[in-house]
Amino acid sequence: MVSVLVTGANRGIGLGLVRQLVQEPSVSIVIATARNVDSAKDLKEIDNPKLHLVSLDTVNEESIAKAHEEVSEIVGDNGLDLLINNAGIFKPYELAGPIDKAGLMEQFEVNTVAPILVVNKFYGLLKLAAQKKGSAQIANISSALGSLELACGPATYPPTIYNMSKAALNMLTRRLATEWKEDNIRATAFSPGWVRTEMGSKDAMLSVEESTGPLTKLILSLTDENNGLFYRHNGEVLPW
Amino acid sequence: MVSVLVTGANRGIGLGLVRQLVQEPSVSIVIATARNVDSAKDLKEIDNPKLHLVSLDTVNEESIAKAHEEVSEIVGDNGLDLLINNAGIFKPYELAGPIDKAGLMEQFEVNTVAPILVVNKFYGLLKLAAQKKGSAQIANISSALGSLELACGPATYPPTIYNMSKAALNMLTRRLATEWKEDNIRATAFSPGWVRTEMGSKDAMLSVEESTGPLTKLILSLTDENNGLFYRHNGEVLPW
Repeated sequence: MVSVLVTGANRGIGLGLVRQLVQEPSVSIVIATARNVDSAKDLKEIDNPKLHLVSLDTVNEESIAKAHEEVSEIVGDNGLDLLINNAGIFKPYELAGPIDKAGLMEQFEVNTVAPILVVNKFYGLLKLAAQKKGSAQIANISSALGSLELACGPATYPPTIYNMSKAALNMLTRRLATEWKEDNIRATAFSPGWVRTEMGSKDAMLSVEESTGPLTKLILSLTDENNGLFYRHNGEVLPW
Repeated sequence: MVSVLVTGANRGIGLGLVRQLVQEPSVSIVIATARNVDSAKDLKEIDNPKLHLVSLDTVNEESIAKAHEEVSEIVGDNGLDLLINNAGIFKPYELAGPIDKAGLMEQFEVNTVAPILVVNKFYGLLKLAAQKKGSAQIANISSALGSLELACGPATYPPTIYNMSKAALNMLTRRLATEWKEDNIRATAFSPGWVRTEMGSKDAMLSVEESTGPLTKLILSLTDENNGLFYRHNGEVLPW
């Protein structure tokens, strides 16, 4: 029985992951977080005793510390088995078009720096779970757009800054997989695919369920062999 | 005869590149930039008629705009043939140790966001040069530490946040190579190696000249075949 925390769970992929996770027999605690869970209407409508709602603004160090306290009380001495860094934004910019530094910085703040702050704060709880059960897992929700090898194709929209933020996040996955290996904390990166969410638009290929169904099963089945690697929602390995 | 602009040229690799570039017969204009060239003692001591010193703080949009005006006057209708994004910083953080958001943000601001601001502003001058001579070139000074494939080895210091900033910079190289291809503006990424600079420390393997000598020849010899790729200073291809 594992405990799971999901960031950015109020909509899109995060909400879809929570809906799948509460139905999984192997999962006992699902901590769904969002900047302000009081206004997370869809999360509040999920009626399941496994579900805990905790406010967590991933770019705010005070909010992370407060959420960490609440999560510590929920999971107790068992620690946190699985941390899913899902919160992210997409800022479209043409490299030759109008850009603003504040907007660029925000793309990296949310997609790249926030996951560092979160894993740093939750390290102790992950380590505790790893000591109890042999391993703990970090799942970073990245994007196939973050793959450098795949990055030179045509794009129907300006993806560069988002791609950069996800390539950097992938490096976090690689380094976590190395640096925390001795603690038996694993890290793995995932592309959810192109999904019909607010970010993915109505034109996207996959429904939220078509992505998060297989993705949830995949994340819950990870072993040491998957440490430091990058997968599509369907389990296909992605190149860096 | 080409014109070259180097950012962060007041010390280290940037200064070394400038010292090499002014000696190259194929180079007619070397624009060495630093946050404040008035205090760039080593640059001011280089006595060469090709050299122009221009203040350019790569994280400051006003400074970039002002430098762009000065550079426009220097290069005139010929545009800018070669832009070397070299300015960078190294912020050491342990993923499980004390971190601060402001420091993390600064790592991405200087190494990742600043090059976006600079290429965006100098796009017109690069395009002008490409129209005159068939091509223009962006050289992004990255690091082998930015390679995701090579990232899981041991490290004698905490490199993660720097690695992340350089992986993101590599994605900028990939996307520039795609998005500005029709304009005949190429982009290529480079690792200078581990060099005895303030950043690299006295323990590093290479002198500044051992790195920037071959690196300068390599950058000046780039063709369409090198567009969107990643090289060591000695020309060896690096994996993403």
